[in-house]
Amino acid sequence: MLRLTTDKKIDIMDAKNAPSARCKSGDTVLFETLDCYDCSVTRQGERLKIDRMHNPATGPLFVEGAEVGDALKVEIIKITTRDWGAMGTSFGEFGFKNVQGSDHSMHVYDIKDGVVRAGGFDIPVDNMIGVIGVAPAGEGVLTVTPGAHGGNMDCRRIREGATIYFPVAAEGALLSMGDLHALMGDGEVFGYGLEVSGEVTVRVTAVKGMKLEQPLLIEGGDAMTVASGETMQEATEKALESMYHLLRQCGQDEGEAGILMSMVCNIALCQMVNPLFTVRAEMPARMLEKVIKG
Amino acid sequence: MLRLTTDKKIDIMDAKNAPSARCKSGDTVLFETLDCYDCSVTRQGERLKIDRMHNPATGPLFVEGAEVGDALKVEIIKITTRDWGAMGTSFGEFGFKNVQGSDHSMHVYDIKDGVVRAGGFDIPVDNMIGVIGVAPAGEGVLTVTPGAHGGNMDCRRIREGATIYFPVAAEGALLSMGDLHALMGDGEVFGYGLEVSGEVTVRVTAVKGMKLEQPLLIEGGDAMTVASGETMQEATEKALESMYHLLRQCGQDEGEAGILMSMVCNIALCQMVNPLFTVRAEMPARMLEKVIKG
Repeated sequence: MLRLTTDKKIDIMDAKNAPSARCKSGDTVLFETLDCYDCSVTRQGERLKIDRMHNPATGPLFVEGAEVGDALKVEIIKITTRDWGAMGTSFGEFGFKNVQGSDHSMHVYDIKDGVVRAGGFDIPVDNMIGVIGVAPAGEGVLTVTPGAHGGNMDCRRIREGATIYFPVAAEGALLSMGDLHALMGDGEVFGYGLEVSGEVTVRVTAVKGMKLEQPLLIEGGDAMTVASGETMQEATEKALESMYHLLRQCGQDEGEAGILMSMVCNIALCQMVNPLFTVRAEMPARMLEKVIKG
Repeated sequence: MLRLTTDKKIDIMDAKNAPSARCKSGDTVLFETLDCYDCSVTRQGERLKIDRMHNPATGPLFVEGAEVGDALKVEIIKITTRDWGAMGTSFGEFGFKNVQGSDHSMHVYDIKDGVVRAGGFDIPVDNMIGVIGVAPAGEGVLTVTPGAHGGNMDCRRIREGATIYFPVAAEGALLSMGDLHALMGDGEVFGYGLEVSGEVTVRVTAVKGMKLEQPLLIEGGDAMTVASGETMQEATEKALESMYHLLRQCGQDEGEAGILMSMVCNIALCQMVNPLFTVRAEMPARMLEKVIKG
Protein backbone atom coordinates (compact mmCIF):
# COMPACT_ATOMS: atom_id res chain seq x y z
CA MET A 1 0.00 0.00 0.00
CA LEU A 2 1.25 3.46 -0.89
CA ARG A 3 2.24 5.44 2.22
CA LEU A 4 2.57 9.24 2.34
CA THR A 5 4.90 10.35 5.11
CA THR A 6 5.00 13.58 7.06
CA ASP A 7 8.25 14.75 5.56
CA LYS A 8 6.07 15.63 2.55
CA LYS A 9 3.70 18.24 3.93
CA ILE A 10 2.12 21.49 2.87
CA ASP A 11 0.58 24.49 4.56
CA ILE A 12 -1.16 25.73 1.44
CA MET A 13 -3.47 23.75 -0.84
CA ASP A 14 -2.57 24.86 -4.33
CA ALA A 15 -2.86 23.50 -7.88
CA LYS A 16 0.79 24.51 -8.29
CA ASN A 17 2.03 22.17 -5.54
CA ALA A 18 4.22 19.35 -6.83
CA PRO A 19 2.67 15.95 -6.01
CA SER A 20 4.29 14.01 -3.18
CA ALA A 21 3.07 10.75 -4.62
CA ARG A 22 0.89 9.37 -7.41
CA CYS A 23 -1.71 6.60 -7.41
CA LYS A 24 -4.39 5.14 -9.64
CA SER A 25 -8.10 5.74 -9.21
CA GLY A 26 -9.41 3.04 -6.87
CA ASP A 27 -6.16 2.65 -4.94
CA THR A 28 -5.92 2.45 -1.16
CA VAL A 29 -3.40 4.85 0.35
CA LEU A 30 -2.15 5.60 3.85
CA PHE A 31 -1.45 9.17 5.03
CA GLU A 32 0.73 9.71 8.08
CA THR A 33 -0.25 13.03 9.65
CA LEU A 34 1.21 15.55 12.10
CA ASP A 35 -0.94 17.33 14.68
CA CYS A 36 -1.95 20.97 14.19
CA TYR A 37 1.00 22.11 16.30
CA ASP A 38 3.40 20.44 13.86
CA CYS A 39 4.01 17.97 16.73
CA SER A 40 5.84 20.64 18.71
CA VAL A 41 3.94 19.89 21.94
CA THR A 42 5.35 17.18 24.17
CA ARG A 43 3.43 14.66 26.20
CA GLN A 44 4.08 16.84 29.26
CA GLY A 45 2.22 19.73 27.68
CA GLU A 46 5.28 21.76 26.85
CA ARG A 47 5.26 23.38 23.45
CA LEU A 48 8.75 23.21 22.02
CA LYS A 49 8.41 25.61 19.12
CA ILE A 50 6.20 28.66 19.36
CA ASP A 51 5.30 29.86 15.92
CA ARG A 52 2.17 30.56 13.94
CA MET A 53 -0.51 27.89 13.77
CA HIS A 54 -0.27 26.40 10.30
CA ASN A 55 -2.06 23.06 10.40
CA PRO A 56 0.37 21.02 8.32
CA ALA A 57 -1.28 18.63 5.85
CA THR A 58 0.42 15.58 4.38
CA GLY A 59 0.50 15.41 0.60
CA PRO A 60 -0.54 16.21 -1.99
CA LEU A 61 -1.48 12.93 -3.63
CA PHE A 62 -1.97 12.94 -7.41
CA VAL A 63 -4.84 10.59 -8.37
CA GLU A 64 -4.50 9.48 -11.99
CA GLY A 65 -7.69 9.99 -13.97
CA ALA A 66 -9.08 12.73 -11.70
CA GLU A 67 -9.70 15.66 -14.01
CA VAL A 68 -11.12 19.14 -13.59
CA GLY A 69 -14.91 18.88 -13.32
CA ASP A 70 -14.89 15.37 -11.84
CA ALA A 71 -15.40 14.54 -8.20
CA LEU A 72 -12.81 12.81 -6.05
CA LYS A 73 -14.39 10.17 -3.83
CA VAL A 74 -12.45 9.57 -0.61
CA GLU A 75 -13.51 6.64 1.55
CA ILE A 76 -12.09 6.87 5.05
CA ILE A 77 -11.29 3.28 5.88
CA LYS A 78 -9.30 3.62 9.07
CA ILE A 79 -8.02 6.30 11.45
CA THR A 80 -5.48 5.55 14.16
CA THR A 81 -3.80 8.07 16.45
CA ARG A 82 -1.03 8.27 19.02
CA ASP A 83 -1.98 7.61 22.64
CA TRP A 84 -2.17 11.19 23.89
CA GLY A 85 -3.71 14.46 22.77
CA ALA A 86 -2.93 18.13 23.40
CA MET A 87 -5.47 20.89 23.76
CA GLY A 88 -5.35 24.58 24.53
CA THR A 89 -8.12 27.05 25.18
CA SER A 90 -8.53 30.24 23.19
CA PHE A 91 -10.09 32.59 25.74
CA GLY A 92 -10.50 35.86 23.91
CA GLU A 93 -8.22 34.91 21.04
CA PHE A 94 -10.60 33.73 18.32
CA GLY A 95 -13.92 32.03 17.79
CA PHE A 96 -16.12 32.31 20.86
CA LYS A 97 -15.16 35.46 22.76
CA ASN A 98 -17.94 36.03 25.31
CA VAL A 99 -16.10 34.45 28.19
CA GLN A 100 -12.74 35.71 29.30
CA GLY A 101 -10.29 33.48 31.13
CA SER A 102 -6.67 33.43 32.15
CA ASP A 103 -5.96 29.75 31.37
CA HIS A 104 -3.82 29.69 28.25
CA SER A 105 -1.84 26.61 29.17
CA MET A 106 -1.46 23.52 27.03
CA HIS A 107 -3.38 20.57 28.51
CA VAL A 108 -2.33 17.03 27.68
CA TYR A 109 -4.63 14.02 27.99
CA ASP A 110 -3.81 10.34 27.79
CA ILE A 111 -5.86 8.24 25.39
CA LYS A 112 -6.26 4.73 26.82
CA ASP A 113 -8.59 1.95 25.71
CA GLY A 114 -10.41 4.45 23.50
CA VAL A 115 -11.23 6.77 26.40
CA VAL A 116 -10.04 10.21 27.50
CA ARG A 117 -10.52 11.36 31.09
CA ALA A 118 -11.24 15.10 31.33
CA GLY A 119 -13.06 17.26 33.85
CA GLY A 120 -13.77 14.19 35.95
CA PHE A 121 -15.47 12.27 33.13
CA ASP A 122 -14.51 9.31 30.96
CA ILE A 123 -15.18 10.35 27.38
CA PRO A 124 -15.03 7.84 24.50
CA VAL A 125 -12.77 9.09 21.71
CA ASP A 126 -14.31 9.95 18.35
CA ASN A 127 -11.42 10.39 15.91
CA MET A 128 -12.00 12.81 13.05
CA ILE A 129 -10.02 14.58 10.35
CA GLY A 130 -9.78 18.37 10.74
CA VAL A 131 -8.05 19.18 7.44
CA ILE A 132 -8.82 17.26 4.27
CA GLY A 133 -9.15 18.62 0.77
CA VAL A 134 -7.98 18.95 -2.80
CA ALA A 135 -6.31 21.79 -4.66
CA PRO A 136 -8.77 24.69 -4.97
CA ALA A 137 -9.74 26.49 -8.16
CA GLY A 138 -7.70 29.68 -8.56
CA GLU A 139 -5.29 30.85 -5.90
CA GLY A 140 -3.92 28.55 -3.25
CA VAL A 141 -5.65 28.45 0.15
CA LEU A 142 -3.85 28.09 3.49
CA THR A 143 -4.48 24.84 5.35
CA VAL A 144 -5.98 26.82 8.24
CA THR A 145 -8.85 27.93 5.97
CA PRO A 146 -11.87 25.92 4.73
CA GLY A 147 -13.61 26.28 1.37
CA ALA A 148 -15.30 24.51 -1.53
CA HIS A 149 -12.09 22.48 -1.92
CA GLY A 150 -12.39 21.20 1.66
CA GLY A 151 -9.41 22.25 3.76
CA ASN A 152 -9.78 23.10 7.43
CA MET A 153 -13.49 22.24 7.67
CA ASP A 154 -13.12 20.78 11.17
CA CYS A 155 -16.22 18.68 10.62
CA ARG A 156 -16.49 15.94 13.22
CA ARG A 157 -18.47 13.68 10.91
CA ILE A 158 -15.38 13.23 8.70
CA ARG A 159 -14.55 10.11 10.65
CA GLU A 160 -13.82 6.44 10.05
CA GLY A 161 -16.48 4.96 7.77
CA ALA A 162 -17.32 8.28 6.12
CA THR A 163 -17.11 8.94 2.39
CA ILE A 164 -16.44 12.45 1.15
CA TYR A 165 -16.66 13.76 -2.41
CA PHE A 166 -14.69 16.84 -3.42
CA PRO A 167 -15.05 18.90 -6.60
CA VAL A 168 -11.81 18.38 -8.58
CA ALA A 169 -10.31 21.70 -9.68
CA ALA A 170 -6.80 20.58 -10.70
CA GLU A 171 -5.52 17.61 -12.63
CA GLY A 172 -4.92 14.71 -10.24
CA ALA A 173 -7.10 16.38 -7.58
CA LEU A 174 -4.08 16.77 -5.23
CA LEU A 175 -5.50 15.34 -2.02
CA SER A 176 -3.93 16.29 1.31
CA MET A 177 -4.94 15.79 4.93
CA GLY A 178 -3.89 16.36 8.53
CA ASP A 179 -5.02 17.92 11.82
CA LEU A 180 -6.61 14.83 13.36
CA HIS A 181 -8.68 15.21 16.51
CA ALA A 182 -9.42 12.43 18.98
CA LEU A 183 -12.34 14.54 20.24
CA MET A 184 -14.03 17.68 18.95
CA GLY A 185 -17.60 18.90 19.39
CA ASP A 186 -19.55 20.62 16.62
CA GLY A 187 -18.25 24.16 16.67
CA GLU A 188 -14.81 23.51 18.17
CA VAL A 189 -16.01 26.29 20.39
CA PHE A 190 -12.96 27.07 22.50
CA GLY A 191 -10.58 26.97 19.59
CA TYR A 192 -9.08 23.49 19.46
CA GLY A 193 -9.86 19.83 19.23
CA LEU A 194 -7.95 17.20 21.15
CA GLU A 195 -5.01 17.42 18.77
CA VAL A 196 -3.25 14.22 17.73
CA SER A 197 -0.92 12.86 15.09
CA GLY A 198 -1.89 9.62 13.41
CA GLU A 199 -2.50 7.62 10.28
CA VAL A 200 -5.44 7.64 7.89
CA THR A 201 -6.14 4.90 5.35
CA VAL A 202 -8.33 5.98 2.44
CA ARG A 203 -9.51 4.66 -0.91
CA VAL A 204 -9.53 7.33 -3.61
CA THR A 205 -11.63 7.17 -6.78
CA ALA A 206 -12.17 9.63 -9.60
CA VAL A 207 -15.92 9.94 -10.28
CA LYS A 208 -16.74 11.17 -13.77
CA GLY A 209 -19.63 13.52 -14.37
CA MET A 210 -20.36 14.30 -10.73
CA LYS A 211 -20.55 18.08 -10.43
CA LEU A 212 -20.40 19.48 -6.91
CA GLU A 213 -20.57 23.03 -5.55
CA GLN A 214 -19.31 22.02 -2.11
CA PRO A 215 -17.89 18.87 -0.52
CA LEU A 216 -20.54 16.16 -0.09
CA LEU A 217 -20.11 13.94 2.96
CA ILE A 218 -21.84 10.61 3.54
CA GLU A 219 -21.76 9.25 7.08
CA GLY A 220 -24.05 7.47 9.49
CA GLY A 221 -26.96 7.35 7.06
CA ASP A 222 -26.81 11.07 6.27
CA ALA A 223 -25.72 12.97 3.17
CA MET A 224 -24.23 16.35 4.07
CA THR A 225 -23.20 19.42 2.14
CA VAL A 226 -20.36 21.20 3.94
CA ALA A 227 -19.84 24.91 3.22
CA SER A 228 -17.91 27.86 4.61
CA GLY A 229 -18.50 31.58 4.68
CA GLU A 230 -17.63 34.88 6.32
CA THR A 231 -20.59 34.52 8.71
CA MET A 232 -22.48 31.53 10.05
CA GLN A 233 -25.47 32.58 8.02
CA GLU A 234 -23.47 32.80 4.80
CA ALA A 235 -22.03 29.33 5.44
CA THR A 236 -25.50 28.00 6.20
CA GLU A 237 -27.00 29.49 3.07
CA LYS A 238 -24.24 28.04 0.89
CA ALA A 239 -24.73 24.57 2.41
CA LEU A 240 -28.50 24.84 1.92
CA GLU A 241 -28.19 26.09 -1.63
CA SER A 242 -25.94 23.19 -2.52
CA MET A 243 -28.34 20.72 -0.86
CA TYR A 244 -31.33 22.22 -2.66
CA HIS A 245 -29.61 21.85 -6.02
CA LEU A 246 -28.74 18.22 -5.28
CA LEU A 247 -32.38 17.47 -4.40
CA ARG A 248 -33.49 19.11 -7.65
CA GLN A 249 -30.98 16.91 -9.51
CA CYS A 250 -32.66 13.94 -7.82
CA GLY A 251 -35.92 14.95 -9.49
CA GLN A 252 -37.69 16.80 -6.68
CA ASP A 253 -39.73 19.77 -7.85
CA GLU A 254 -39.05 23.13 -6.22
CA GLY A 255 -41.87 22.94 -3.69
CA GLU A 256 -41.11 19.45 -2.45
CA ALA A 257 -37.35 20.03 -2.45
CA GLY A 258 -37.96 22.95 -0.10
CA ILE A 259 -40.50 21.06 1.98
CA LEU A 260 -38.25 18.00 2.40
CA MET A 261 -35.53 20.33 3.59
CA SER A 262 -37.87 21.98 6.11
CA MET A 263 -39.03 18.55 7.27
CA VAL A 264 -35.75 16.69 7.75
CA CYS A 265 -32.69 18.80 6.91
CA ASN A 266 -30.58 19.57 9.98
CA ILE A 267 -28.08 22.42 10.22
CA ALA A 268 -25.06 21.91 12.45
CA LEU A 269 -22.04 24.11 13.02
CA CYS A 270 -18.75 22.41 12.14
CA GLN A 271 -16.45 25.13 13.43
CA MET A 272 -16.46 28.80 14.41
CA VAL A 273 -12.74 29.33 14.96
CA ASN A 274 -11.09 29.36 11.54
CA PRO A 275 -10.84 32.34 9.20
CA LEU A 276 -14.24 31.30 7.79
CA PHE A 277 -17.17 29.59 9.55
CA THR A 278 -18.13 26.06 8.43
CA VAL A 279 -21.65 24.63 8.54
CA ARG A 280 -23.13 21.37 7.28
CA ALA A 281 -26.65 20.62 6.06
CA GLU A 282 -27.66 17.03 6.81
CA MET A 283 -30.34 15.03 4.99
CA PRO A 284 -31.15 11.31 5.06
CA ALA A 285 -28.78 9.79 2.48
CA ARG A 286 -31.63 7.77 0.93
CA MET A 287 -33.16 11.04 -0.32
CA LEU A 288 -30.01 11.81 -2.31
CA GLU A 289 -29.10 8.37 -3.58
CA LYS A 290 -29.64 9.41 -7.22
CA VAL A 291 -26.69 11.81 -7.04
CA ILE A 292 -24.42 9.71 -4.84
CA LYS A 293 -22.28 7.96 -7.43
CA GLY A 294 -19.14 5.94 -7.69
CA MET B 1 -56.60 16.53 34.94
CA LEU B 2 -56.71 20.25 34.25
CA ARG B 3 -57.28 20.98 30.54
CA LEU B 4 -56.50 24.29 28.85
CA THR B 5 -58.58 24.78 25.72
CA THR B 6 -57.87 26.80 22.60
CA ASP B 7 -60.55 29.38 23.31
CA LYS B 8 -58.02 30.75 25.81
CA LYS B 9 -55.08 31.75 23.63
CA ILE B 10 -52.56 34.53 23.35
CA ASP B 11 -50.33 35.99 20.68
CA ILE B 12 -48.10 37.83 23.11
CA MET B 13 -46.33 36.40 26.15
CA ASP B 14 -46.64 39.06 28.81
CA ALA B 15 -46.53 39.26 32.60
CA LYS B 16 -49.71 41.37 32.35
CA ASN B 17 -51.72 38.55 30.73
CA ALA B 18 -54.55 37.29 32.93
CA PRO B 19 -54.12 33.56 33.67
CA SER B 20 -56.40 31.18 31.78
CA ALA B 21 -56.10 28.60 34.53
CA ARG B 22 -54.22 27.93 37.77
CA CYS B 23 -52.56 24.80 39.08
CA LYS B 24 -50.26 23.67 41.87
CA SER B 25 -46.58 22.94 41.48
CA GLY B 26 -46.26 19.27 40.55
CA ASP B 27 -49.61 19.07 38.73
CA THR B 28 -50.14 17.41 35.37
CA VAL B 29 -51.94 19.59 32.85
CA LEU B 30 -53.15 19.16 29.28
CA PHE B 31 -52.85 21.96 26.71
CA GLU B 32 -54.97 21.80 23.55
CA THR B 33 -53.17 23.75 20.82
CA LEU B 34 -54.00 25.34 17.48
CA ASP B 35 -51.61 25.19 14.53
CA CYS B 36 -49.55 28.24 13.55
CA TYR B 37 -52.17 29.21 10.95
CA ASP B 38 -54.79 29.47 13.72
CA CYS B 39 -56.27 26.33 12.10
CA SER B 40 -57.37 28.36 9.06
CA VAL B 41 -55.97 25.83 6.55
CA THR B 42 -58.26 22.97 5.56
CA ARG B 43 -57.26 19.40 4.88
CA GLN B 44 -57.46 20.21 1.17
CA GLY B 45 -54.75 22.83 1.54
CA GLU B 46 -57.02 25.80 1.24
CA ARG B 47 -56.34 28.58 3.67
CA LEU B 48 -59.65 30.05 4.83
CA LYS B 49 -58.40 33.23 6.49
CA ILE B 50 -55.43 35.08 5.14
CA ASP B 51 -53.99 37.27 7.83
CA ARG B 52 -50.68 37.81 9.55
CA MET B 53 -48.88 34.81 10.99
CA HIS B 54 -49.33 35.02 14.73
CA ASN B 55 -48.58 31.57 16.14
CA PRO B 56 -51.38 31.37 18.71
CA ALA B 57 -50.34 29.84 22.04
CA THR B 58 -52.74 28.30 24.53
CA GLY B 59 -52.63 29.75 28.03
CA PRO B 60 -51.23 31.20 30.12
CA LEU B 61 -51.17 28.78 33.02
CA PHE B 62 -50.45 30.20 36.49
CA VAL B 63 -48.34 27.74 38.51
CA GLU B 64 -48.74 28.37 42.23
CA GLY B 65 -45.43 28.69 44.02
CA ALA B 66 -43.45 29.73 40.93
CA GLU B 67 -41.86 33.02 41.86
CA VAL B 68 -39.52 35.45 40.13
CA GLY B 69 -36.00 34.02 40.24
CA ASP B 70 -37.12 30.39 40.33
CA ALA B 71 -37.11 28.02 37.40
CA LEU B 72 -40.23 26.38 35.99
CA LYS B 73 -39.64 22.72 35.17
CA VAL B 74 -41.87 21.45 32.37
CA GLU B 75 -41.84 17.71 31.68
CA ILE B 76 -43.35 16.88 28.31
CA ILE B 77 -45.21 13.66 28.99
CA LYS B 78 -47.23 13.21 25.82
CA ILE B 79 -47.82 14.93 22.46
CA THR B 80 -50.65 13.90 20.15
CA THR B 81 -51.65 15.64 16.92
CA ARG B 82 -54.41 15.57 14.33
CA ASP B 83 -53.93 13.21 11.37
CA TRP B 84 -52.77 15.73 8.78
CA GLY B 85 -50.30 18.57 8.55
CA ALA B 86 -50.00 21.71 6.42
CA MET B 87 -46.82 23.21 5.11
CA GLY B 88 -45.90 26.12 2.87
CA THR B 89 -42.58 27.17 1.43
CA SER B 90 -41.15 30.63 1.97
CA PHE B 91 -39.13 31.15 -1.23
CA GLY B 92 -37.68 34.62 -0.91
CA GLU B 93 -39.95 35.63 1.97
CA PHE B 94 -37.85 35.05 5.06
CA GLY B 95 -35.15 32.83 6.47
CA PHE B 96 -33.16 31.18 3.72
CA LYS B 97 -33.27 33.38 0.62
CA ASN B 98 -30.61 32.03 -1.74
CA VAL B 99 -33.01 29.99 -3.84
CA GLN B 100 -35.92 31.60 -5.60
CA GLY B 101 -39.03 29.64 -6.47
CA SER B 102 -42.58 30.24 -7.61
CA ASP B 103 -44.26 27.60 -5.44
CA HIS B 104 -46.12 29.46 -2.69
CA SER B 105 -48.98 26.98 -2.39
CA MET B 106 -50.09 25.30 0.81
CA HIS B 107 -49.20 21.60 0.78
CA VAL B 108 -51.19 19.18 2.92
CA TYR B 109 -49.88 15.78 4.04
CA ASP B 110 -51.72 12.92 5.69
CA ILE B 111 -50.20 11.49 8.86
CA LYS B 112 -50.95 7.76 9.04
CA ASP B 113 -49.45 5.14 11.34
CA GLY B 114 -46.84 7.67 12.44
CA VAL B 115 -45.58 8.26 8.90
CA VAL B 116 -45.79 11.13 6.39
CA ARG B 117 -45.23 10.49 2.69
CA ALA B 118 -43.47 13.42 0.99
CA GLY B 119 -41.25 13.71 -2.08
CA GLY B 120 -41.60 9.98 -2.69
CA PHE B 121 -40.36 9.00 0.79
CA ASP B 122 -42.01 7.62 3.90
CA ILE B 123 -40.83 9.80 6.78
CA PRO B 124 -41.50 8.87 10.44
CA VAL B 125 -43.14 11.75 12.31
CA ASP B 126 -41.20 13.42 15.10
CA ASN B 127 -43.68 15.64 16.96
CA MET B 128 -42.24 18.74 18.60
CA ILE B 129 -43.43 21.98 20.19
CA GLY B 130 -42.62 25.15 18.25
CA VAL B 131 -43.80 27.71 20.81
CA ILE B 132 -43.43 27.13 24.55
CA GLY B 133 -42.50 29.65 27.17
CA VAL B 134 -43.28 31.75 30.19
CA ALA B 135 -43.93 35.47 30.63
CA PRO B 136 -40.73 37.38 29.87
CA ALA B 137 -39.07 39.96 32.08
CA GLY B 138 -40.06 43.45 31.00
CA GLU B 139 -42.20 44.09 27.94
CA GLY B 140 -44.35 41.39 26.40
CA VAL B 141 -42.95 39.40 23.45
CA LEU B 142 -44.98 38.24 20.45
CA THR B 143 -45.43 34.48 20.14
CA VAL B 144 -43.60 34.58 16.79
CA THR B 145 -40.40 35.64 18.59
CA PRO B 146 -38.03 33.55 20.75
CA GLY B 147 -36.06 34.73 23.75
CA ALA B 148 -34.77 33.90 27.22
CA HIS B 149 -38.40 33.25 28.21
CA GLY B 150 -38.70 30.58 25.51
CA GLY B 151 -41.40 31.49 22.98
CA ASN B 152 -41.01 30.60 19.31
CA MET B 153 -37.74 28.69 19.69
CA ASP B 154 -38.74 26.08 17.09
CA CYS B 155 -36.35 23.59 18.66
CA ARG B 156 -37.06 20.07 17.44
CA ARG B 157 -35.68 18.50 20.60
CA ILE B 158 -38.61 19.93 22.60
CA ARG B 159 -40.42 16.67 22.04
CA GLU B 160 -42.16 13.95 24.06
CA GLY B 161 -39.91 12.84 26.91
CA ALA B 162 -38.04 16.15 27.09
CA THR B 163 -37.80 18.32 30.21
CA ILE B 164 -37.33 22.05 29.84
CA TYR B 165 -36.52 24.58 32.54
CA PHE B 166 -37.43 28.24 32.07
CA PRO B 167 -36.28 31.22 34.14
CA VAL B 168 -39.40 32.53 35.93
CA ALA B 169 -39.81 36.28 35.46
CA ALA B 170 -43.42 36.77 36.64
CA GLU B 171 -45.39 35.34 39.55
CA GLY B 172 -46.96 32.04 38.53
CA ALA B 173 -44.55 31.76 35.56
CA LEU B 174 -47.49 32.00 33.07
CA LEU B 175 -46.73 29.03 30.83
CA SER B 176 -48.19 28.93 27.31
CA MET B 177 -47.59 26.72 24.29
CA GLY B 178 -48.68 26.03 20.72
CA ASP B 179 -47.33 25.69 17.16
CA LEU B 180 -46.81 21.92 17.13
CA HIS B 181 -44.93 20.36 14.23
CA ALA B 182 -45.20 16.72 13.19
CA LEU B 183 -41.87 17.17 11.38
CA MET B 184 -39.27 19.93 11.35
CA GLY B 185 -35.54 19.77 10.68
CA ASP B 186 -33.01 21.82 12.62
CA GLY B 187 -33.22 25.24 11.03
CA GLU B 188 -36.79 25.07 9.71
CA VAL B 189 -34.99 26.20 6.63
CA PHE B 190 -37.79 26.91 4.17
CA GLY B 191 -39.90 28.71 6.73
CA TYR B 192 -42.32 26.19 8.18
CA GLY B 193 -42.64 22.89 9.94
CA LEU B 194 -45.35 20.38 9.16
CA GLU B 195 -47.93 22.40 11.05
CA VAL B 196 -50.47 20.58 13.20
CA SER B 197 -52.93 21.17 16.00
CA GLY B 198 -52.84 18.78 18.93
CA GLU B 199 -52.62 18.16 22.63
CA VAL B 200 -49.67 18.30 24.98
CA THR B 201 -49.63 16.79 28.47
CA VAL B 202 -47.03 18.28 30.81
CA ARG B 203 -46.08 18.19 34.46
CA VAL B 204 -45.11 21.60 35.84
CA THR B 205 -42.94 22.14 38.90
CA ALA B 206 -41.52 25.28 40.50
CA VAL B 207 -37.82 24.75 41.24
CA LYS B 208 -36.46 27.00 43.95
CA GLY B 209 -32.98 28.44 43.70
CA MET B 210 -32.29 27.40 40.12
CA LYS B 211 -31.03 30.48 38.31
CA LEU B 212 -31.00 30.29 34.52
CA GLU B 213 -29.89 32.74 31.85
CA GLN B 214 -31.61 30.83 29.04
CA PRO B 215 -33.98 27.86 28.81
CA LEU B 216 -32.27 24.58 29.70
CA LEU B 217 -33.52 21.53 27.81
CA ILE B 218 -32.87 17.91 28.77
CA GLU B 219 -33.56 15.31 26.10
CA GLY B 220 -32.07 12.11 24.80
CA GLY B 221 -29.17 12.15 27.25
CA ASP B 222 -28.17 15.73 26.41
CA ALA B 223 -28.45 18.97 28.38
CA MET B 224 -28.95 21.95 26.08
CA THR B 225 -28.92 25.70 26.50
CA VAL B 226 -31.23 27.32 23.95
CA ALA B 227 -30.62 30.96 23.04
CA SER B 228 -31.70 33.50 20.44
CA GLY B 229 -30.05 36.52 18.88
CA GLU B 230 -30.03 38.95 15.98
CA THR B 231 -27.47 36.80 14.15
CA MET B 232 -26.61 33.11 14.28
CA GLN B 233 -23.33 33.98 15.89
CA GLU B 234 -24.96 36.07 18.59
CA ALA B 235 -27.39 33.24 19.35
CA THR B 236 -24.50 30.76 19.43
CA GLU B 237 -22.44 32.91 21.76
CA LYS B 238 -25.36 33.34 24.16
CA ALA B 239 -25.99 29.60 24.23
CA LEU B 240 -22.28 28.92 24.80
CA GLU B 241 -21.98 31.56 27.50
CA SER B 242 -24.91 30.08 29.36
CA MET B 243 -23.44 26.57 29.03
CA TYR B 244 -20.03 27.73 30.22
CA HIS B 245 -21.58 29.30 33.34
CA LEU B 246 -23.50 26.10 34.09
CA LEU B 247 -20.30 24.04 33.83
CA ARG B 248 -18.56 26.46 36.18
CA GLN B 249 -21.48 26.07 38.63
CA CYS B 250 -20.83 22.31 38.41
CA GLY B 251 -17.33 22.94 39.74
CA GLN B 252 -15.28 22.85 36.53
CA ASP B 253 -12.41 25.31 36.49
CA GLU B 254 -12.18 27.75 33.58
CA GLY B 255 -9.72 25.71 31.54
CA GLU B 256 -11.52 22.41 31.82
CA ALA B 257 -14.94 24.00 31.33
CA GLY B 258 -13.66 25.37 28.03
CA ILE B 259 -11.92 22.15 27.09
CA LEU B 260 -14.98 19.99 27.83
CA MET B 261 -16.99 22.30 25.60
CA SER B 262 -14.43 22.01 22.78
CA MET B 263 -14.39 18.23 23.21
CA VAL B 264 -18.09 17.38 23.32
CA CYS B 265 -20.35 20.44 23.03
CA ASN B 266 -22.35 20.45 19.79
CA ILE B 267 -23.91 23.53 18.23
CA ALA B 268 -27.10 23.05 16.23
CA LEU B 269 -29.36 25.60 14.62
CA CYS B 270 -32.95 25.44 15.89
CA GLN B 271 -34.45 27.95 13.47
CA MET B 272 -33.42 30.70 11.05
CA VAL B 273 -36.87 32.02 10.10
CA ASN B 274 -38.22 33.93 13.09
CA PRO B 275 -37.43 37.55 13.98
CA LEU B 276 -34.40 36.22 15.90
CA PHE B 277 -32.21 33.18 15.20
CA THR B 278 -32.24 30.31 17.73
CA VAL B 279 -29.30 28.00 18.44
CA ARG B 280 -28.75 25.29 21.02
CA ALA B 281 -25.54 24.12 22.66
CA GLU B 282 -25.67 20.41 23.52
CA MET B 283 -23.57 18.65 26.17
CA PRO B 284 -23.87 15.19 27.69
CA ALA B 285 -26.42 15.61 30.52
CA ARG B 286 -24.18 13.68 32.93
CA MET B 287 -21.69 16.56 32.83
CA LEU B 288 -24.34 18.98 34.12
CA GLU B 289 -26.13 16.81 36.64
CA LYS B 290 -25.08 19.02 39.55
CA VAL B 291 -27.22 21.89 38.20
CA ILE B 292 -30.15 19.83 36.92
CA LYS B 293 -32.51 19.99 39.85
CA GLY B 294 -36.11 19.30 40.72
